[in-house]
Amino acid sequence: MIKTPYLLFLGDAPDALAAKVAQGIKDWRPENAVGQFRMDGCKADLGLPDMTLAEARAAGAQTLVVGVANRGGVISKAWKKVLVAALEEGFDLASGLHNLLRDEPDLVAVAAACGRELHDVRVPEVDYPIAGGVRRSGKRVLAVGTDCSVGKMYTALAMDAEMRERGMKSSFRATGQTGILITGGGVPLDAVVADFMAGSIEWLTPDNDPDHWDVIEGQGSLFHASYSGVTLALIHGGQPDALILSHEPTRAHMRGLPGHSLPSLEALRDVALTLARVVNPACQVVGISVNTQHMSEEEALAYLAETEARMGLPAVDPFRQGAGRLVDALAAI
Amino acid sequence: MIKTPYLLFLGDAPDALAAKVAQGIKDWRPENAVGQFRMDGCKADLGLPDMTLAEARAAGAQTLVVGVANRGGVISKAWKKVLVAALEEGFDLASGLHNLLRDEPDLVAVAAACGRELHDVRVPEVDYPIAGGVRRSGKRVLAVGTDCSVGKMYTALAMDAEMRERGMKSSFRATGQTGILITGGGVPLDAVVADFMAGSIEWLTPDNDPDHWDVIEGQGSLFHASYSGVTLALIHGGQPDALILSHEPTRAHMRGLPGHSLPSLEALRDVALTLARVVNPACQVVGISVNTQHMSEEEALAYLAETEARMGLPAVDPFRQGAGRLVDALAAI
Repeated sequence: MIKTPYLLFLGDAPDALAAKVAQGIKDWRPENAVGQFRMDGCKADLGLPDMTLAEARAAGAQTLVVGVANRGGVISKAWKKVLVAALEEGFDLASGLHNLLRDEPDLVAVAAACGRELHDVRVPEVDYPIAGGVRRSGKRVLAVGTDCSVGKMYTALAMDAEMRERGMKSSFRATGQTGILITGGGVPLDAVVADFMAGSIEWLTPDNDPDHWDVIEGQGSLFHASYSGVTLALIHGGQPDALILSHEPTRAHMRGLPGHSLPSLEALRDVALTLARVVNPACQVVGISVNTQHMSEEEALAYLAETEARMGLPAVDPFRQGAGRLVDALAAI
Repeated sequence: MIKTPYLLFLGDAPDALAAKVAQGIKDWRPENAVGQFRMDGCKADLGLPDMTLAEARAAGAQTLVVGVANRGGVISKAWKKVLVAALEEGFDLASGLHNLLRDEPDLVAVAAACGRELHDVRVPEVDYPIAGGVRRSGKRVLAVGTDCSVGKMYTALAMDAEMRERGMKSSFRATGQTGILITGGGVPLDAVVADFMAGSIEWLTPDNDPDHWDVIEGQGSLFHASYSGVTLALIHGGQPDALILSHEPTRAHMRGLPGHSLPSLEALRDVALTLARVVNPACQVVGISVNTQHMSEEEALAYLAETEARMGLPAVDPFRQGAGRLVDALAAI
């Protein structure tokens, strides 16, 4: 686990999008975000207090989180100065960058000298077991998509937030870099060795109270040629009681795969449910989450109404409408 | 690639089963097996000439293959003496043991001093790409099972052998340790990092002649909670034109998963075909391979006849009957 709360390092982000990891932390776990650290030329602003390292330590921050993408896959000298100073100031470091903190000899040496930890959240830090397929207590919900990057993480975070607001027992279970940084823990599933994928998800979602929901972050798509195996491991390791179908209606082809068309929601429902019932015969599809960001409000509402009528399931865009109706559907099973 | 031909190291195998990797090499690639090396107390015998290291080198052997399971996960001192001597004699070493040759400092040092290679076939030696989903030329066939360890590798090797005997263009594509040792190359799929699984299979089965068949070794099962993700990556990376359904009728539950029952052949056919057509809409199920080793001849033939009639597909046990009818079915598409 990464120690919270965080100081969010925005570096020299060229725009707000480059700092989307930091934005996610601030949006979904504001209690984890003590302040932001911006360098000269930073064009991102989360609206958090700008703090020096010392100020953030005094305010309780434990970890400096690299909440920004770097350019060219290199940790620049300017960043290095801040990261080294942070270690010396008493911060752990956490990052989801492709180039790893642990591959920087100076950071490794300073961290060792200061007794601080480096967390590269792309790299598994646990020896996961092979999945045993044994049913666990507690309930689990998973969003499965017609494609990658259709809003599965957003849907899961919105459902988790709604459930906690209602006083339901809920844990968001992160399976990717951003989710891990937001919550401080999880499984970087795309970096897990094949044989241990499903086992890592069993590890992530252990026995729990009968009325507790694990809201498992989805990955990939059963219909995506590059990542479908990851998705199936998530279904079979997660043993979901409930599935949410996720979709982005304007996409012309599968992400990164020109010529590969998206499946219908019906096709996704049928194959996902068939596979989920292998490990949990009671699994149900309870709702549909549609990412309508590229549609007008009018188009979006029409699409949602048509989808809801056709599929016989609540269909909502959690960003526009909140996740309330998806949580209602969960609460009903 | 591992240099062939081999001297097969049987060590102090307590019985024939412990040497099943060596047996597989001798059965399927006899031209790769120059001889066998047995230590005192070895209870396995492949019927190959017993050779000293020097004799095997003189006969052209390039690699000493550890074709036997070791006891307790430790490479014993007695084995070590032979392995070190083999390196000094000019052999490369290849092994599928859990404990790696590369983790033995003495073997690493001697190999470096002698300019020899250590091949641990459980460990990927290639940086595989992420799958691109682009169709390749040539044809591909994959066996998918109702469970793990139902005879998929045997089926693939038997089909490959039959096709080559008929003068058809065929390559067995190994995806597991034994298969890699048999042929000298392949992908240790269960050890590949999640994001690169499907890409590793694309790498393994590149563009080829239009009438060439890649016979891809299957792994796991879409219905096996521990390994299903590996199987789906194999389907989506392999883009099979033809699927063979593999089954072992007497199994009481999924291998290693008490309480998990096996799916029907119909259920396997439907879900495997749905998923395979995501990347190759022309994919067909062409035959059924049944492992009848725990049935009498009479029971086996009755089961095969019933299955064939029910499924409308040729159903054979390649061990009892050869793979001829499966190859006929391939040749017909």
